[in-house]
Amino acid sequence: VNLKLFPPPKKKDSQVQVMEDTVTNAEKSFSQFCSLLAAYTRKTARLRDKADQLVKQLINFANTENPEMRATLRNFAEDLAKVQDYRQAEVERLETKVVNPLKLYGVQIKQTRAEIKKFKSVRNNEIKQLEKLEKLRQKSPSDRQTIAETSVQRASVDASRTSHQLEETVDTFQKQKLKDIQKIFSDFVTIEMVFHAKALEVYSSAFQTLESYDLEKDLEDFRAKMHGVYGRYDARPPVMDTTLSPALPWSLAQSAQSTIQSQRKEAVSEDDSAEEDPVEDLRGQAQGLHQ
Amino acid sequence: VNLKLFPPPKKKDSQVQVMEDTVTNAEKSFSQFCSLLAAYTRKTARLRDKADQLVKQLINFANTENPEMRATLRNFAEDLAKVQDYRQAEVERLETKVVNPLKLYGVQIKQTRAEIKKFKSVRNNEIKQLEKLEKLRQKSPSDRQTIAETSVQRASVDASRTSHQLEETVDTFQKQKLKDIQKIFSDFVTIEMVFHAKALEVYSSAFQTLESYDLEKDLEDFRAKMHGVYGRYDARPPVMDTTLSPALPWSLAQSAQSTIQSQRKEAVSEDDSAEEDPVEDLRGQAQGLHQ
Repeated sequence: VNLKLFPPPKKKDSQVQVMEDTVTNAEKSFSQFCSLLAAYTRKTARLRDKADQLVKQLINFANTENPEMRATLRNFAEDLAKVQDYRQAEVERLETKVVNPLKLYGVQIKQTRAEIKKFKSVRNNEIKQLEKLEKLRQKSPSDRQTIAETSVQRASVDASRTSHQLEETVDTFQKQKLKDIQKIFSDFVTIEMVFHAKALEVYSSAFQTLESYDLEKDLEDFRAKMHGVYGRYDARPPVMDTTLSPALPWSLAQSAQSTIQSQRKEAVSEDDSAEEDPVEDLRGQAQGLHQ
Repeated sequence: VNLKLFPPPKKKDSQVQVMEDTVTNAEKSFSQFCSLLAAYTRKTARLRDKADQLVKQLINFANTENPEMRATLRNFAEDLAKVQDYRQAEVERLETKVVNPLKLYGVQIKQTRAEIKKFKSVRNNEIKQLEKLEKLRQKSPSDRQTIAETSVQRASVDASRTSHQLEETVDTFQKQKLKDIQKIFSDFVTIEMVFHAKALEVYSSAFQTLESYDLEKDLEDFRAKMHGVYGRYDARPPVMDTTLSPALPWSLAQSAQSTIQSQRKEAVSEDDSAEEDPVEDLRGQAQGLHQ
């Protein structure tokens, strides 16, 4: 009798235990990773919402200020809005490339668990059958021994094949699991890196905007207004008229924001002519930051 | 009579209106900026909390995995924890340099408002007195005209001085306000820039950690375990023994985390010897990102 083919039940039981533990642990862990990363994504979206409110409030406030501060705050608000656009992209990417794959994982694990259960039950039946045949063989009269031995051998081969299939299923599962962990967390890190790099770039420009603000020019305007002399601003409408009401819907504020683009270009060219050396130095430094 | 000194009431009223509008608008806007930025800071703290939970879960999961994935996930968890340390610094700096100055601003505005009110009432009394004296002067017999004129002149000088003081108060307020806006938002941008730069740096290292993960080595270990052959891991305790219970308090998980440091150094030197060219290329690229 080819006893090498006879699967040692004790060892095989602990092997099945390792397989089942692997799948159970993966199921629990991936479900926790999924809810934590979904929550992380939601908190990021909340942060974006707050910053969006800050953008609106900056635009409202800018419209009550004199031209110099108005331009500075509008440019700053525009940069802050840009960072939120990148944060929105971060949120969408986290959902697509991190949270959704983790959700799909749950389905895959359930399938593997079902397969293990099926193989396990098939194998147990095969082992029982094998034991029955073995007893039968021992009791068989000598002329029937050869036939009995053949049956045992056949059953033994079946049981061994099933064990092997079970092993392969779990091996494939483990390989895919390890690959997926690496992929999902690499994607997480890449998404975060892209966001941080973009935010750094935009804030560098925002920093320059705020640094190049000309306080004295603004104070002149304020003093002129306080004395009722509008001087160089005769042609402009009164500042309060362009105030956005805080109750204004975001869509309107958005369209107001889009008009900033053209106004901003004027402001930039004005700034350029009035540019001083320290500002030029700063710009160089800030550019160095994201090279 | 020196009528130039006589303050024209209409113009002065609109001037006081501009002053009061300036202060009222600043009070409203700064209080809104204060609550929005406090909320932004709180949302950032919530994001940090979620990521801290993810760190704990990564460490728990790492402890159930084979050595290769265990080292990779622990290093990744450590980097993720570092980013949260920087986020914590961001939260503290936002509170100290952005939210608190905006809170203090509320106090300063109330003082300015009280000063304006006081000057306004003093000036109104002075103007009334001036009008009374002017009527008196017109009715005065000619021999008393000179005395009456002197009184009018004196009252006129007083009223003018008070107006000037009021103007100076508001001028100082406006100057300080514009400086503070620039300072507070520049600080906000600087704090955000520092955080994003640090996060980018740490995630670049995390990316390398995940990229250098050796799947095949890990699968060998898994297969050996599944066949009950522990081979090269004979000296090591069974993997499940080091599992951190999910119910374990954070303080314990933290101390477990601190032991990672030394283990991590070993892992890094192991990684270096097994390093392949594509990883080296990637490291170069990632370093280029934050130069």
